Formats: sequence, structure tokens, C-alpha cells
Amino acid sequence: MAVHDCVFCAIVRGEAEASIVHEDDTTVAFMDLQPVTPGHLLVVPKAHAPGLEDLPEPLGAHMWTVAHRLARALRRSNLRCDGVNLFLADGEAAFQEVFHAHLHVFPRFVGDGFRIDADWRVRERGELDRSAAAVRAGLLALDASGSVPARAPTA
Amino acid sequence: MAVHDCVFCAIVRGEAEASIVHEDDTTVAFMDLQPVTPGHLLVVPKAHAPGLEDLPEPLGAHMWTVAHRLARALRRSNLRCDGVNLFLADGEAAFQEVFHAHLHVFPRFVGDGFRIDADWRVRERGELDRSAAAVRAGLLALDASGSVPARAPTA
Repeated sequence: MAVHDCVFCAIVRGEAEASIVHEDDTTVAFMDLQPVTPGHLLVVPKAHAPGLEDLPEPLGAHMWTVAHRLARALRRSNLRCDGVNLFLADGEAAFQEVFHAHLHVFPRFVGDGFRIDADWRVRERGELDRSAAAVRAGLLALDASGSVPARAPTA
Repeated sequence: MAVHDCVFCAIVRGEAEASIVHEDDTTVAFMDLQPVTPGHLLVVPKAHAPGLEDLPEPLGAHMWTVAHRLARALRRSNLRCDGVNLFLADGEAAFQEVFHAHLHVFPRFVGDGFRIDADWRVRERGELDRSAAAVRAGLLALDASGSVPARAPTA
């Protein structure tokens, strides 16, 4: 399902300009218009999916595999690349700006200007255990909704 | 292959304390000791792999699928979660600190204190096209090294 005012859908349809590096049956990868560093890529599903709730698990896994290969390609390119970050924002509170799921892949080097800030204090085990219990309850709720549990790869 | 001084290998072996939320044949997920927000999780492969160069593609895809499910579980938990970020750091320049590949999954909400800063200027198409050409050359180099190209999912 394409969405008429979605810029990534327009790129998928070939109706909006993009610098494409990869395309297959279900995904496209192209340069971010506002790169954190030169080489900043986005991997998107061809089918419109606003976020992780809408994205089929196999398609998400394939996006990841494309991103994994692009990360390795960046290291083999002539772009400056001493490290790579992969990043996905799901929801406005998580800094998602285009509501067509997209996985960022961008090269890193010392002094590249990319910064993360957070309160990284070590937490007590009791607090972590309570968080873990909450996540496990969330997993049970997800399983109860009929979603298929993740399985180990066969290869 | 386990590495004796690797803290994540110690967690996988059950020899280091961790608040575990998921375990299967090839991955373990547990609470980050220094959470960005309550509910911050790490998904790691059981087999030691320092980074993306060492991680088999199917195992990386499975880590992603586990992370995808954990993101959805966070939204169904009683933890504060208006959005979710997924993040992987590959290499010291990309802020990797533990050299056993790990995928971060953390809930987000307005005012949670997590910040990203970068130079997000819109770049000219010519510059983006040159970056794209460099990435495509990197993909060719990767393919030439005998790595199997990513394929679309069958399901």
C-alpha cells in the first residue's frame, strides 16, 4: 500500500529524486538528504509501514540484512569510515520524522560531530529486575495477541 | 567461541549477573546495566562476535527479529514507552564499548533526557550521488570478497 503524501513511497515509485545504492523485491536503500556523515544511508521497505507495529517480521529482518551489508560496504568504500551506527526511530517520541519505517546506517570517525547524550548511571539490580519483569509481561501480552514468537535461524 | 574476559560471554554462560528477558538457541536479551531509560535492553548473539564483520547475516537478522519483538513488548509493558529506538554501535569510533556485538532497544518518552546532536544540513544532490557511487563500489568490493548478497524474504 502506497501513501500519496509519503516521500519514501514516492522514492520507491521512482517519483521523487534519490541517490539509490540498493534495490530488491522488498526494499530500497538510498542516501539520507541530511546526512550525519557522508555516506549516511536509509533502508526502507517498499510497502508502506509507518513503524515497527506495521512491519512484518521477515521484512524487518531483511531490512536489517541489507543494512548489515551496507555497513560492511561503507568500510570497503573510499568514504571515511572507522565505525558504523545503525539506528531506527519508532515513534515521534523516539525522534521518528518520516512515518515510513527506515533504518539508518551511517559511517563514523573521530571528530565527526555526532553526539549522544543521556543519563548513563549504573542502576541497582532490583530496579533492573523489575524492568525485566515488565518486559517479560509485555512479551506475554505480545504472544497472547497471536504474534508468532521469534525463532532461531536455521542457517 | 567464548572469550574469557568478555562480560557478555560471561552472561551467556550464566557466570555473570544479568536481568534476562529472552533466551533462545542463538541469542540472549537482558537489561542494560546503564539504561538510557527504564526498559533499556541489549540483544546479543551467544557466539562471541566483536562486530558486524564477524556476525553471520542470518544471526544478525535473528538478533533484529528478537529486538523487533522486544520493541513491541515494551509498548505492551507497564514501562513508560511512547516510542522505541534500536541502535547498534560497530567500532570504537561509533561509540561501541563492549566488543561483543549488541543491539540496543530502549523505550522513549518526551523529556526522557536522551539526546542526539549532529550537523543535519540538507546536502546537494551531486554530493549525495558521489556518496552513493562510493557505497555501490563498496558493495561490489563486498560481493567480490565472496559474501552472499542479501535476498528478499520468502515469507
